[in-house]
Amino acid sequence: MVYELYYWPGIPGRGEFVRLALEEGGAKYIDIALQPGAEATVARFLQGSRVPRPPFAPPFLKAGKQIIGQTANILLFLGGPLKLAPRDETGKLWVHQLQLTVADLVAEAHDTHHPISAGLYYEDQKQEAKRRAKDFREHRIPKFFGYFEKVLTRNRTAGPWLVGGRVTYADLSLAHAVAGIRYAFPKASARVLRKCPRLNKLHDAVFERPRIRRYVESGRRQSFNEYGLFRRYPELDG
Amino acid sequence: MVYELYYWPGIPGRGEFVRLALEEGGAKYIDIALQPGAEATVARFLQGSRVPRPPFAPPFLKAGKQIIGQTANILLFLGGPLKLAPRDETGKLWVHQLQLTVADLVAEAHDTHHPISAGLYYEDQKQEAKRRAKDFREHRIPKFFGYFEKVLTRNRTAGPWLVGGRVTYADLSLAHAVAGIRYAFPKASARVLRKCPRLNKLHDAVFERPRIRRYVESGRRQSFNEYGLFRRYPELDG
Repeated sequence: MVYELYYWPGIPGRGEFVRLALEEGGAKYIDIALQPGAEATVARFLQGSRVPRPPFAPPFLKAGKQIIGQTANILLFLGGPLKLAPRDETGKLWVHQLQLTVADLVAEAHDTHHPISAGLYYEDQKQEAKRRAKDFREHRIPKFFGYFEKVLTRNRTAGPWLVGGRVTYADLSLAHAVAGIRYAFPKASARVLRKCPRLNKLHDAVFERPRIRRYVESGRRQSFNEYGLFRRYPELDG
Repeated sequence: MVYELYYWPGIPGRGEFVRLALEEGGAKYIDIALQPGAEATVARFLQGSRVPRPPFAPPFLKAGKQIIGQTANILLFLGGPLKLAPRDETGKLWVHQLQLTVADLVAEAHDTHHPISAGLYYEDQKQEAKRRAKDFREHRIPKFFGYFEKVLTRNRTAGPWLVGGRVTYADLSLAHAVAGIRYAFPKASARVLRKCPRLNKLHDAVFERPRIRRYVESGRRQSFNEYGLFRRYPELDG
């Protein structure tokens, strides 16, 4: 099976959570974002009238004839074949629950720079962004990071992972979310991460994995920038 | 199996999406929100140090020894036993994808009255709320409702449902989201719903189902109010 990942070009965005799973799982896939005309290809899918089960937004994954949307749902689908989820039903649900909590964190990180509308420029909602970012730094980063630190502490199996003794897609996504928040809020995140040794370790363990390292070094990984989910605006950090 | 649903008392909130599934599925369950001391019971769980797989926030469901958090994840779990999801894997994922899109809509509806911080009062973010609600009314309600209308149109099976010919938990959740948005934004939602005949029909079909009607008439269903996800502030509608 050669998967096709559909996402906007030029940003890591939500597509990156899927990419990390595909890379770690050793999957064959075509990253549409790296193909010429990516934007038009994605738009054609969203607007096309022939897709019987149309996605709401990218990323979406094509697996044979099946088209799967919603980041966490794509990972739920990939978890089995890529061996990035436990095989028992209880474990599968727990990993998915953690993934959905990562998704909530990511949505809140996005809204720090777009608290009013994703359709407006940052510059048009800068004052509101300052207020929302302050709340995110002071309350939400500590709450989410503290939660994941707790989950890591309560996993009694040896190793740096959230669930049991093997890496799952939730570990990959959480590591990327931590990387994104470190990029966007270097000062605020450093303060919180000082109290989260296990979360730091998980982040490092993910980016030290051979396949993830190879991917990062390949140049195919999109850099964080001021067009994506995680943006570094110094006035929003502190 | 007698399920236990843990959620804050006094509001429908995200707990309601789970309740509707439990009711339609004819499940036996204890609604902790209706028990004395509900708030303390929920808090004890969240703060307790003995839960090996702690939820981040309510709602969460206790099923025997298993504790499942994240609304969409709870519904993924219940879909099979309550016969509210297709049996094939592809259908299951598609219903879950739609549920996650409902969840996105609901989160955005919440943020219209809390665009800065869930930890502050509405009155402390009223100006920002006006701007965000305007965007929600003009762009987001049409986008989400239009999307679901499209999905309903493309479901070739007869009947009012999103997927195939049988009701799923995503139908129940979407109907409740429509009800909530009609409550919070009576004017703006009426304008959009005029162009969404299938979505209107789905809403009515859900609330006409015998078990759902019995539930609504039982008095156990929490009313919408100005403490929950969907709030009617006339200054945010228009």
